[in-house]
Parts: sequence; structure tokens; C-alpha cells
Amino acid sequence: MRENEYTPNVFARGLGLDSMKTVGIICPNISDHYMARAVAYLEESLHENGYDCILGCSGYKQEERESYVKLMLSKRIDTLVLVGSSYAGSSRNEFDTDYIREAAETTPVFMINGRVDGKNVYCACADDYHATYEVTTKLIKRGKKKILFMYDSDSFSARQKMAGYDAALSEAGYPVRGDLKFKTKNNIEYTRDLLLTYKNLEFDSVVATDDGIAVGALKYAKVKGISVPEELSIIGYNDSILAVGCEPELTSIDSKLAVLCKTTIDHMIRLLGKGEEIEPYVCVPCNVVKRCTTDF
Amino acid sequence: MRENEYTPNVFARGLGLDSMKTVGIICPNISDHYMARAVAYLEESLHENGYDCILGCSGYKQEERESYVKLMLSKRIDTLVLVGSSYAGSSRNEFDTDYIREAAETTPVFMINGRVDGKNVYCACADDYHATYEVTTKLIKRGKKKILFMYDSDSFSARQKMAGYDAALSEAGYPVRGDLKFKTKNNIEYTRDLLLTYKNLEFDSVVATDDGIAVGALKYAKVKGISVPEELSIIGYNDSILAVGCEPELTSIDSKLAVLCKTTIDHMIRLLGKGEEIEPYVCVPCNVVKRCTTDF
Repeated sequence: MRENEYTPNVFARGLGLDSMKTVGIICPNISDHYMARAVAYLEESLHENGYDCILGCSGYKQEERESYVKLMLSKRIDTLVLVGSSYAGSSRNEFDTDYIREAAETTPVFMINGRVDGKNVYCACADDYHATYEVTTKLIKRGKKKILFMYDSDSFSARQKMAGYDAALSEAGYPVRGDLKFKTKNNIEYTRDLLLTYKNLEFDSVVATDDGIAVGALKYAKVKGISVPEELSIIGYNDSILAVGCEPELTSIDSKLAVLCKTTIDHMIRLLGKGEEIEPYVCVPCNVVKRCTTDF
Repeated sequence: MRENEYTPNVFARGLGLDSMKTVGIICPNISDHYMARAVAYLEESLHENGYDCILGCSGYKQEERESYVKLMLSKRIDTLVLVGSSYAGSSRNEFDTDYIREAAETTPVFMINGRVDGKNVYCACADDYHATYEVTTKLIKRGKKKILFMYDSDSFSARQKMAGYDAALSEAGYPVRGDLKFKTKNNIEYTRDLLLTYKNLEFDSVVATDDGIAVGALKYAKVKGISVPEELSIIGYNDSILAVGCEPELTSIDSKLAVLCKTTIDHMIRLLGKGEEIEPYVCVPCNVVKRCTTDF
């Protein structure tokens, strides 16, 4: 790959030169706030660098993901960016990510918060394992004994978070209990109502894989008259607008999306522009943003 | 314009046929939840119809809007979609929308919730005037006398909302007071803090042009120990995830974004596919979604 002059006519570019100056971006659902923020960062940086963005919203199903990637490759894009950890497979099937390695034979593939190993695949991920390990350990040190882990998928990121939770419990000598791993949807009302149906489930704290889930737990506490954080500590993820909008405001993990996107674009420009070798995998530490649903 | 067969190769399409099967979508900021939802609806429908989406995020400045539109037109798109009412000018300068009429000489322009009159310009708007008129009238009928109108821009939509507010006050024989028109940003913490600085501003209700502003007013009430809705009624706009996430949950106007997007795509397909004549302006009524920050 070599650097190309910018030429304004799409056909001249497509026929005469190597580069269309176009990047394909695929995310499952752009109305998800995390993904919308990612696309906002990416588009801004790509625009500054003279690239156009073709956007595809694939949904979450394996066959849709694969067909969107194929479609995008037919556009002769310079690179493909996959936003969100669902593209890194479900762990149930090791062949789930073959389509990414195949795509990378044609064009470089950049993944935001998903890890797939393969030639020409470049991943920037938040360190979800250590972030979840850290907050779970903090809850244990505050005397919490029944920590509910709430999640909504088996994505790469959710698996990292669950592994961090498991490790913290194990290290403290606590059992890892299946009934304290609570699968829900990333939807406030759905999560609140689902929790209300589990009448015998006892927990003194919540670690959620997304703020939407955590706010669902907060709404459950409101309905049940449980005081937060005195009787129930709640920790969300992604430090979204919901964390500030809810009451009491939510302690949440900042998953450093801006850094992941900046890293991705920097790497892309180095690869496309200068043909430099770049690291295939970058892991970025998260921050805990302390608000009012925890006492730490 | 006539219907084209779908051909998978972008160059063949670009050279040999009339259509690239590509739509340019420009919004000011994709990380705004309203715009992200609009792009999600549009992309899904366009994909179903075999169109690709090029996405541009222009920001809010006039020159950026104009330069993004120009850039997008250089891509030989089939149509251009402008999401959000900021593209319809600020009302301070009638020439603000000339760039849209100029763009429409090259390609059909579809506007989501902005109105510009011109040949080849097609607008789908929520009836923000009547929605705001209706909720303001309801507040007046409940005995509210100091209704604060909170807004963050002079966009087409914000002007419609303010006109509806003015009309309701005038009809009830109330003065339209400049000090009760409160300009802020669509940001919870900024709005809360700005309200806290106005120590002599008295109001018994809030009509906000976005949920983010309304939740800022709710946070202000929390800090001041003002009970909602007993002492202060609050009405938001766009019926976003924030309206459900905040506490008490927010009464909000559903601005029918899904209907606006569906109308836009239906019209686009009729125009591009069948060359039908379509209405240049469609106005869709809104709904009030009653929750806990009002007593109606």
C-alpha cells in the first residue's frame, strides 16, 4: 500500500489509482450510544484525513455480520472498521471469526473493542478484564458477598468482563455462583421488570456490562424501596449520558472509547499512508468514574 | 430518473449506469441520540432497498454544513439526506439555505425535520409547533403562570417550538416574557448549573426542546429541593432513553422520528424508482408521552 494523492472524482480514483479514499465502517446498531460515539470519533478523524465513510449497520446475527462484511468489501474500500465486540465471535464456535480473517486477505480490518488474531487484522480494546476485576475486588473489600454480574451478550467484551469478575471472586475465596450471573437485555425497563420476577434472588451489589443494564437495576431498587448505595451498590459500564441522567448518578467504568478510536485511526493512517508495521493488538486501561451508586 | 438494476461493482455502476445506488446522509453530530436513531432507521431501510450510505457529520457551523454538502455531491450520490433542523437555517439570514437549493439542482435533497422550500427539496417534519402549543396550553389550564421555555438553538425546529409556546401564552392572555425564554446547551450538567446561577428567576414549569435540557432542569430541582411535579412540572422532547432513565421519569413529546424516516425513504424510492411526483412537504403530528414529571 502506498500514499495516494487526493482526487475529487470518485471514478478517476476508482479506476486510475489504488485508493478510493473510502473506509467502510460496520457496527451492529448505530442507535446504541456507544457505537454512535465511536462512529462520531471515527468519521471526524477520517474526514480530517480526507477519507469518506460508508456506514453499515449489520445487526447482531452471525449471517448478517458476514453478509455486511462481504457487501462492504465489494465497494473497494481502503480499510474496514468493525465497531463493537460482537464481531469477535461468541466463543461457542471458533469458526465464527473466519469471515474476518478472510476479509483481511482483501483489505486491512480494524476492530474496535473486539479481538481476533489474524494477518492484516488490527485490534484496539479496552482492558475490560482488569476494570471488572478491580471494581469487583473493591466491592468485596467493602464487605459485599453477593455480587450480581449483569450482562446482555456473549461478546468478546462481555467475556472479558465476566472473566474479571470470576477472577476477583476466586482470589477472595468466594464461590463463582451461576445464579449470580444474570443475563438480560441492554434496556432499562426490561431489566427492571426481569429483576422483579426473580423473587428469591438475593444480592447486595451489581456489576453491569452497560449503563443501560445498571440503570435497570437502579429502577428495580426504586420499585422495591432498596436504598442505593447503602443496601445495594451498582456499577455501570461505558460512562454514558445515562450515568449522569439517572438518580442517584451512576458509578461507571469509562471504557476509553475515544482512545480506542484515536489509536485505530492513527494506526490506519500509518499503515495506509506510510506502509508502516503496526501492532496487531493494543489494550487500553479503563477508569472508574465514581458517582453516587457506590461508597467508593 | 429511472430504476436501475442492482450491479455489485461500484465502477461498473458509476460508469455504465445512471445510479451508484448510494445515498449521502449528513447530520451535525451522530453521537446525538436523535440523529443516531434517524441514521439507524435510514440505513436499515436503504440497505433493504439495495442502497449504500455515505455518512458525513458536519457539525453545526454554516460553512461546515455547506462544505460537507459540496463534498457529498462530488461523490455522485443518488440523493442527499440532511438529518436535523439545523440545515434549514437560523432565520437570521435568508440566504442560509441557498446551498440546499443549489445542491438540489444536482441531486434530490431530503430533509428530516427541517423545512426549506425549493425545487427538488423534500421535507418531512414533526409538527413541533402544535405539540409545544398543546403542552403549554395544558400547563396553563393546570394553573401554571410562569412557564420557562428552555432551548439550545435557533434551528427550524426550535423556532417552531417557540412559536407554539408563544401562541399558547398569547391565547391565554399571558404576556410572552423574554426572561422566561432560557437558552442553554443540550447537556444535563451544563443546564443544571446554568439554572443554579439565575437566583432570581422564578418559574413553576418547564417546556424544553430536548430531553437532555429537561433532565438538566430536573437535576436543578433535585439540588434545590423542589418537588417534581408538585412544585415544578417538566416536559422534555424526543422521548429518548433519558426520559426513562431519569427519576422521576420524564413526560416527553414523541417527535415521531421513525415516521419521518419512513416517509423520507418511501418518497425517495417512489421518486428514484418510479419517477413519481411526491409532496415537497409532509408534517407529522407528535404525541405527548405522559410520565411522572407532570400531573397530566
